[in-house]
Amino acid sequence: MSTAVSPLAPTDVPAMPEIAGVKLATAAAGIRYKGRTDVLLAVLDKGTTVGGVFTKSKCPSAPVEWCRAKLKRGGSSKEIFARALVVNSGNANAFTGKTGKQSTALTAQIAARAVGCHVNDVFLASTGVIGEPLDATKFDGVLGQLNGAAAPGDWMGAARAIMTTDTFPKVATATVKLGKTSVTINGMAKGAGMIMPDMATMLSFVFTDAPLSGAVLQSLLKNGVEDTFNAVTIDSDTSTSDTLLAFATGTAAANGAPKITRASDPRLKAFAKAFYEVLANLSEQVARDGEGARKLVEVIVEGATTKASARKIAMSIANSPLVKTAIAGEDANWGRVVMAIGKAGEPANRDKISISFNGIRVARSGARDPSYNEVEVSEAMKAPKIQIKVALGMGKGRDRVLTCDLTKEYVAINGDYRS
Amino acid sequence: MSTAVSPLAPTDVPAMPEIAGVKLATAAAGIRYKGRTDVLLAVLDKGTTVGGVFTKSKCPSAPVEWCRAKLKRGGSSKEIFARALVVNSGNANAFTGKTGKQSTALTAQIAARAVGCHVNDVFLASTGVIGEPLDATKFDGVLGQLNGAAAPGDWMGAARAIMTTDTFPKVATATVKLGKTSVTINGMAKGAGMIMPDMATMLSFVFTDAPLSGAVLQSLLKNGVEDTFNAVTIDSDTSTSDTLLAFATGTAAANGAPKITRASDPRLKAFAKAFYEVLANLSEQVARDGEGARKLVEVIVEGATTKASARKIAMSIANSPLVKTAIAGEDANWGRVVMAIGKAGEPANRDKISISFNGIRVARSGARDPSYNEVEVSEAMKAPKIQIKVALGMGKGRDRVLTCDLTKEYVAINGDYRS
Repeated sequence: MSTAVSPLAPTDVPAMPEIAGVKLATAAAGIRYKGRTDVLLAVLDKGTTVGGVFTKSKCPSAPVEWCRAKLKRGGSSKEIFARALVVNSGNANAFTGKTGKQSTALTAQIAARAVGCHVNDVFLASTGVIGEPLDATKFDGVLGQLNGAAAPGDWMGAARAIMTTDTFPKVATATVKLGKTSVTINGMAKGAGMIMPDMATMLSFVFTDAPLSGAVLQSLLKNGVEDTFNAVTIDSDTSTSDTLLAFATGTAAANGAPKITRASDPRLKAFAKAFYEVLANLSEQVARDGEGARKLVEVIVEGATTKASARKIAMSIANSPLVKTAIAGEDANWGRVVMAIGKAGEPANRDKISISFNGIRVARSGARDPSYNEVEVSEAMKAPKIQIKVALGMGKGRDRVLTCDLTKEYVAINGDYRS
Repeated sequence: MSTAVSPLAPTDVPAMPEIAGVKLATAAAGIRYKGRTDVLLAVLDKGTTVGGVFTKSKCPSAPVEWCRAKLKRGGSSKEIFARALVVNSGNANAFTGKTGKQSTALTAQIAARAVGCHVNDVFLASTGVIGEPLDATKFDGVLGQLNGAAAPGDWMGAARAIMTTDTFPKVATATVKLGKTSVTINGMAKGAGMIMPDMATMLSFVFTDAPLSGAVLQSLLKNGVEDTFNAVTIDSDTSTSDTLLAFATGTAAANGAPKITRASDPRLKAFAKAFYEVLANLSEQVARDGEGARKLVEVIVEGATTKASARKIAMSIANSPLVKTAIAGEDANWGRVVMAIGKAGEPANRDKISISFNGIRVARSGARDPSYNEVEVSEAMKAPKIQIKVALGMGKGRDRVLTCDLTKEYVAINGDYRS
C-alpha cells in the first residue's frame, strides 16, 4: 500500500479555528490498524442541530441505516438534535448482517453513557473493510476516556483518525457573516477509493456555530452536494458507507447571530455560499487524493442539451479507464474522449464536437483540429492538473466533474488492500 | 506494450476448415504497424447474403456508418448481397469527419475495382487509433494484389491481420447439419480493450456456406449477440467501431442444403445453436485476451427480479475496478461485490444476499458465511478462472457476464498506446 503523500495534496493547509460547542478527541482503539488513531469522538453542545445525506447504495452499511433512522425520528416537524458523533476507520461495519445492527446499537449505547446523552442523539460513521464484523466492545472504555479528553482545536488530528487509504488529512474552513455576526464553518473529509456519486466521498463532517435549524442544514446539504461531492468520481465505485453529516451548535447566537429556520431566508445567502465552498474544497481534496492519482482531472462539458445530459457525458469521460490511463500516460488521446462521449448514450453529434486539453483545442467539427501540434499538446499534458473541455454544440447544458488519472499504483493499492 | 501471449489463451486452437465461396488474403499495407499484416480482404461468391450488428455509440466510426447504410439499402424487403469484406487494423477511421467518409468511399471503390463488383457490395471495418485520418490510397494496388492471391484456408492469418493489442488470433468453427447436409460456420474476432456492450468486441466476422437469407442471418445475430458479445466487458468502454458481420455464401445448397428464409424455420434449430456457440466461443476468447488480463472472470447473478436486472447487477460487478483489482490480487473480497451490487440501483435486499467464489460460499444472509475459511478461499483464488456467483433471493432472474481482472499491465498498455 502506498504511504507517500499524493503529489496533488494541497500545499496550503488552513489553520482550523475552534468552533464553540464542538469538542474533539481521537484514540487508537486497534480496530484494524496498528500505531495510529482510528476513532474520533466529537462531543456536541446541547441544542446542536443535524442534517445528513448518504450513499444511494441498495446495500448501505449499518451506520448509514442508523443515522438515517435517527434523522427521520418524529417526521419532518420535529427538530433532531445531536450530542455525539463517533467515527471509526478500519472497518466499515457494512454487510455484517444482524451483527452490524447490534454493533451500531452497542456503540451508540457506549457513546451515550460516555457523553451523558440519549442513544438517539449519537450519530455514527464507519469506514474501512466491508464484510468483517465490527467488535463494538473495543469502544468500551475508549469513548469514556475520549469524552474526558475532548477539547476544541485538533481538527487535523480528527481528520487523520478517519483516514483509510488517504495519503493526507482533508480539512477546510470558512468564516462568514450571519447577520452582523461572524460564524465559522469547519469541515473534514476522507475518501480516496470507492468514490462515485451518490455520495462521492465515504465520510465527511461539517460543523458550524451558526444557529441553523436541521431543515436548513438539510437544504444546504442537498443543494451543496450536487456539484461538489456528487460531481467527484475516482473509480465509478459507490461505497456502501458514504455519509455527509452537518452539525450546527448554534453557539454564535450568544454573539447575536440570528436563528435561521428557513432555507429561503435572505440572511442565509452568504453563509450558503461559504458552506458550498467548504464542500467544494473538501470534495476537490478527495479527487486530489484518489488512490494512486498523479493528475487531477477536471472534465467540463458544454453545449449539451441539458445540465443532466452534460453530467452524464462528463461522468462517462471521467469514469473511462481508457481516458484515465491515457492521462496517466500524459497522452492527449481525444479519440478516447470521443469514445466516452459516444458511449454515454446522450444526444451528441459527432461532427459538431470540439475537444480541448488544458485550453489547447485538439479536435473540432468532429475531426482533428487543423492547427493541432503534437509537441505543444504533449508539453501541456505534463501538468499536474488536466482540464478536458468538450463542446457539443447541441444546447446550453453545462456541467463539471472532477476525477484523477488511473495509474498502476491504483491497481497495486486495490489488489493488495485486504491482505 | 505487452507482446507476451495472454496466459488465458485457449490451448486448443481448432483446425479451421475451408468454406466454399470464401477466399481470404492478407497484406502488410503499413497503415500503422511495421512488419506485420494489417489488411484483410475476404472475397465472397456471388449470392452471398449478409447481416450485421454494430456499436450503440453515438459517435460511430465511418466504416460502421458505411455498413449500416449498405444493410439498410432498399428497406427490409430487398435482399442485400456482399462480394467483399475489407478490414484494416492500426486505424479505426473514427472521429475523422468528412475525411473519414471519403476514406470509406475510396476504400470501397478500390475494393470493388479489385474484386469486380459494385461498391454497394463491399463491407468495411477498421480498428485501431481513433481520430487519425485513414489514408485509403494505401489500399490502392494492395487490394488488387490481394484479390489475385485470395484463397480458401488461411483463417489464422486472417484473424492475425485484424489484431490490435490482442495477444493471440481468435477463431472458432462448427460443423452442423442443415437438413441432411453438413454445413460449416467459421468465425474470427479481435478485441482486447474498449470492450463493453453494445457491441462487446470491436470486430468479429462469421462466415457460413449455409444458404440463409439476410433476414435469417440478422435474426441469428440479434438473438445470439445478447448473451455472448454483449455479455462480455473488459473495461466498460464502448468502442466507436464495434462490428459483427455474418456472411452466408449459400454454396452448401449445391450439396442439398435447404434454403432457409425464415428464422422460425424448424430446420434452422441445430444451425442456430451451433452459430450461437461460435459467437460464445469467440466472445469468451475476447475476455480471455482482455488487456493485461491474468484471470478470466465469470459473474453469475441468480435470484434477481428479472434477467435484465440480473444483467445490470452482473455488469456492475464485472465493471467495478475494485472488484477487478481484488481478483488481480487473488483476494476473495466479497465486500466489494456487495458494493457493486448496491451501486447497480437494482432491487436487492442486503440481508438475503449470498456470494460464492469458485463454488465456495463466503457470504450468506447478508453477512460472512459462518463456515468461511480464509485459507481455503485464498487457495481457490489462485485459479486462472474465477467464478463469482451471487444469489439475491428476490426472484427468478438470472444472467451471466464474462470479464477479466484489472492489472497494472492494463494501465501500462493503455497509458502507452498512442505514443
